[in-house]
Amino acid sequence: MEKNKNVLEIPYGTRDFLPNEAAGKRAIETKLAELFTEWGYDEVVTPTIEYLDNLTLGSSHSLEPHLFKLFDRNNRTLALRHEMTTPIARLVSSRLQDYPLPMKLSYISSVFRYEQTQTGRQCEFHQAGVELMGSTSAFADAEVIALAIRGMMCSGLKDFQLCLGQVEFINGIMEQYQLPPKMKEKLKDAMEKRDLVAFGDLIDHLALPENAKEVLKKLPLLNGGEDMLKDAYGFALNEQSRRALDNLCEIYHLLDAYGLTKYVRFDLGIIRDFNYYTGMVFEAYTRGLGFPLCGGGRYDHLLSDFGSACPATGFALGIERILLALERQNLKKPVRPKDIYLGYAQGKAGDAVKKAEELRCQGDVVEIALIPQTREAAAISQKDKGYKELVYLS
Amino acid sequence: MEKNKNVLEIPYGTRDFLPNEAAGKRAIETKLAELFTEWGYDEVVTPTIEYLDNLTLGSSHSLEPHLFKLFDRNNRTLALRHEMTTPIARLVSSRLQDYPLPMKLSYISSVFRYEQTQTGRQCEFHQAGVELMGSTSAFADAEVIALAIRGMMCSGLKDFQLCLGQVEFINGIMEQYQLPPKMKEKLKDAMEKRDLVAFGDLIDHLALPENAKEVLKKLPLLNGGEDMLKDAYGFALNEQSRRALDNLCEIYHLLDAYGLTKYVRFDLGIIRDFNYYTGMVFEAYTRGLGFPLCGGGRYDHLLSDFGSACPATGFALGIERILLALERQNLKKPVRPKDIYLGYAQGKAGDAVKKAEELRCQGDVVEIALIPQTREAAAISQKDKGYKELVYLS
Repeated sequence: MEKNKNVLEIPYGTRDFLPNEAAGKRAIETKLAELFTEWGYDEVVTPTIEYLDNLTLGSSHSLEPHLFKLFDRNNRTLALRHEMTTPIARLVSSRLQDYPLPMKLSYISSVFRYEQTQTGRQCEFHQAGVELMGSTSAFADAEVIALAIRGMMCSGLKDFQLCLGQVEFINGIMEQYQLPPKMKEKLKDAMEKRDLVAFGDLIDHLALPENAKEVLKKLPLLNGGEDMLKDAYGFALNEQSRRALDNLCEIYHLLDAYGLTKYVRFDLGIIRDFNYYTGMVFEAYTRGLGFPLCGGGRYDHLLSDFGSACPATGFALGIERILLALERQNLKKPVRPKDIYLGYAQGKAGDAVKKAEELRCQGDVVEIALIPQTREAAAISQKDKGYKELVYLS
Repeated sequence: MEKNKNVLEIPYGTRDFLPNEAAGKRAIETKLAELFTEWGYDEVVTPTIEYLDNLTLGSSHSLEPHLFKLFDRNNRTLALRHEMTTPIARLVSSRLQDYPLPMKLSYISSVFRYEQTQTGRQCEFHQAGVELMGSTSAFADAEVIALAIRGMMCSGLKDFQLCLGQVEFINGIMEQYQLPPKMKEKLKDAMEKRDLVAFGDLIDHLALPENAKEVLKKLPLLNGGEDMLKDAYGFALNEQSRRALDNLCEIYHLLDAYGLTKYVRFDLGIIRDFNYYTGMVFEAYTRGLGFPLCGGGRYDHLLSDFGSACPATGFALGIERILLALERQNLKKPVRPKDIYLGYAQGKAGDAVKKAEELRCQGDVVEIALIPQTREAAAISQKDKGYKELVYLS
């Protein structure tokens, strides 16, 4: 039976969702789809496969080894999408060009990346998110952040923190000390990896006055509430970094109107993994989970790579990560309970069918037995299958 | 800008769903997910990618050219799933082995097949369906058929016909004339293609008495209601074909208890495209659509290929085909309307946020302007974006 053993395997980094897991996934995705609709975001669906050139357009060359590649009949290279922002940028630049701006779009999709897998990090995973196209306003950024927070709340999460940064703050600080482009890259790389030792080493070797080095070394440590933000103005010596802080202040005040600031703190050292971000960036964390539940930010140049200049902002929530967090925190998934198991005696199949339809019309979840059973056997089936109640026709 | 033109393309046989199309897809999928839950079917989710060996296990070798293949890091061949029955058979044979039988499972997934595309036939498409494992009863077959009909109804379709056949009837008839296996294959092939000329030619060349040839030639024409079924007993000279007709009678009487026989007719010449079917088979059609909306049947041997013998029955509905039929028949998709566009004057952003949240709590779909507008500009946005009502804060 060696053959049969092999055919039971699934590829590296993929997973099956068993009934309980899939019910949680469906419930959360349905809640999120409703939420996005209520906020005026229109869902779009794009192909699972895109041309490779298309997916790598807005990203650094380091992306390619992480893509699942295949070939079409004309030997052009295709890849499974690794995220949804780039496909949606393509869609907006082609078939949605005549839609009125600003455009509020959403998606709930599977995406694919070759990664070393671990709990919470798979090669195929599911994301729900939004892209808001055509507005540079802080109001747009605040709306996107508020929607990410509401998304986590309606998924059943209670205890999480959204960390908010601004890539232009870091860029401005690096600019004010006239760091060469390669050094900026290296520093950002160390910050993204949260490797403070490497980060400090790089700075120690710069030909800069001590006070400048001190400011740079503080970058990854600038996190906290409104007070920290006020202090950060002390480091912002040029217009670029000051404007970035002003932008964060404006966003924060709007989030206050949403009543959501208790979920928000600033982290000016955030560097996101895709390098198309140009403004505010954020990540959300919850206890017991060593990776973000959610991430997003502003990306004002990606669409111009597709031929239509248009500012944009958005986020993606990780569905598997939400499910994992709910499980680890013993929180309830918004799943429908199993109400009635319907058993019946010999000769009562037709009556059972009618009864089941009647109960379903009343809103009950009803499973019918597929063969006549004794009442005792039906009671065992009801318990085995986890139904709250037995209805039996004798 | 030639470069930009290319990056706007999508691969052959794939499509984007624009907001209106995606809303229809989401609405139908949500309705179907609810329906399957109400009938006690548990959703499962399997990987988009499977090992090639696994997907081709239950199927003829003619499947392979239709698969999208790729390679993993160990050079094993993977493929994008072409349907969901085989992956679910794998799942049931591995991680669900200890679940109580019968097992009622459902899925809503994208699947992939290289095909010559045409309207209603794409290389990536979406299917919703169920698999009922562990029961040989006609009750199980009737439940699956009833659920397929209810699925089409809850998607918004009104006018469709489900054609019901039984592969064991055809097998029995061919057996009673002792046709060689190769000839059976050829005849089934011609029947599947509905090529009655080729079918007739093949039969003319058989060394059989004229009355036998006449019976065989009638096979593709045996369709109609209960009366036709009674007539068909006249051709059934062996146990195998008679049992197949008995099975259809029993299923039909149960569908009568569901009140659904008006949607059902018999077509004893149905041959389905996958050759794992072993009992009743069906396809559903609607006017203006030259291909089935839905197909399914009983497959009692597929699971034993994965090492666990278990009878099974199920169906798959084509989501794109339902959407196309609704559009062609001018029927409404079960989509939520856009209620309120919320505009506001300078300085009122915070109030607008609070108002929007209040309206959403009441159940309205609300889009807020991203910048202050005049009342006139807000009224234009409201109309452009298709909202029923304008709320303006001045």
